[in-house]
Amino acid sequence: MPQKRPSGTLSPPVIQRLSEYLLILEQFITQEQEVVSSRALATVYGNNSSQVRHDIFQIEHKGSQSHGYLCIELIKDIRIALNLQNEKNLCIIGMGNLGRAITAHVPFDKYGMNLSATFDIDPDVVGKKIGGIEVYSAESMMDILKEKNITMAALCVPATRAQKTCDQIIHSGVKGILNYSRIRLKVPEHVSVHYEQIICSFMQLSYKCSL
Amino acid sequence: MPQKRPSGTLSPPVIQRLSEYLLILEQFITQEQEVVSSRALATVYGNNSSQVRHDIFQIEHKGSQSHGYLCIELIKDIRIALNLQNEKNLCIIGMGNLGRAITAHVPFDKYGMNLSATFDIDPDVVGKKIGGIEVYSAESMMDILKEKNITMAALCVPATRAQKTCDQIIHSGVKGILNYSRIRLKVPEHVSVHYEQIICSFMQLSYKCSL
Repeated sequence: MPQKRPSGTLSPPVIQRLSEYLLILEQFITQEQEVVSSRALATVYGNNSSQVRHDIFQIEHKGSQSHGYLCIELIKDIRIALNLQNEKNLCIIGMGNLGRAITAHVPFDKYGMNLSATFDIDPDVVGKKIGGIEVYSAESMMDILKEKNITMAALCVPATRAQKTCDQIIHSGVKGILNYSRIRLKVPEHVSVHYEQIICSFMQLSYKCSL
Repeated sequence: MPQKRPSGTLSPPVIQRLSEYLLILEQFITQEQEVVSSRALATVYGNNSSQVRHDIFQIEHKGSQSHGYLCIELIKDIRIALNLQNEKNLCIIGMGNLGRAITAHVPFDKYGMNLSATFDIDPDVVGKKIGGIEVYSAESMMDILKEKNITMAALCVPATRAQKTCDQIIHSGVKGILNYSRIRLKVPEHVSVHYEQIICSFMQLSYKCSL
């Protein structure tokens, strides 16, 4: 029998899979599928049913394995386990194509996140709204972050400016950074950095394609 | 003593870490650091030195652990292990902000990949060049993929068009797909899909920030 961890300590791989199961379950709901077995969920995800059951065992979910999971109930419980019900404010720093793509396409509000501000250094963009969100200047960044209680940031700036920007936003209260720049960041222990290095995903895919 | 896998069968987590070590080692080189210990590499990556040693043990690398790894030699061997020396042709499908960001910022040619074509349905964009790469029409896609021997694709189209586009490109010889749409794709066994769901990365970060 796998051990259940104490509340609030899901491991990173489990969190990652649960977040992906959530999207799959929502896809089932739009297809009017109400019940899913661990095997069917595993097939769509690309793992195996025992891992699915093990992951779901980690969260508070009362659904019965034998008759399959009720999608809507499992969605509710994954959302609670991932703490999505507590809204967090986030910002995007660097409004080039990537920052704009994230602003336009990532449905933050559906997952307990509130895109509160974006920042750029280009005077042609500062003061305008992109996707309904105001673009603030880099100079005002530290004040705005505190004022709006922003605790998460997507860092979409060039590598040369990444560490300096990182230091500034941590000083202003940011605790979680999604880093799209290609350098590793030095951060204090209380700050989490999630690296999104697009070239690494392509390298992994390229490796699989070369087998 | 960890078991070495037969050549060409590195596991996905090992491939992922090796690709990230590669970027870190290149960062060291630009900072004129020639030698790195497993501990120092682990500190920058965010894991531990035994995992670093275990990962490097999986590849053909003759460097000595006791005196640290020579960055330039380790870079060379990781590149060989990841098959980066065999150039692969890839394309980007959907030239909205995300497709443009990938075209502009991902240094494919440095890592054995050749961005050979991009595709879009917008007549205002088709026939132009973005970042030096021609944008072809969706209608010509299947022919161009075959003609240019493209085996990898980044799928940056809306969810509603993702599966249909996926079916077409597989029919035209694509074996690896980096999927940015928020739906799971049905693919035959010989095709690899790597899911890049930006909202899932934010959910993982949000979870860590809420602890």
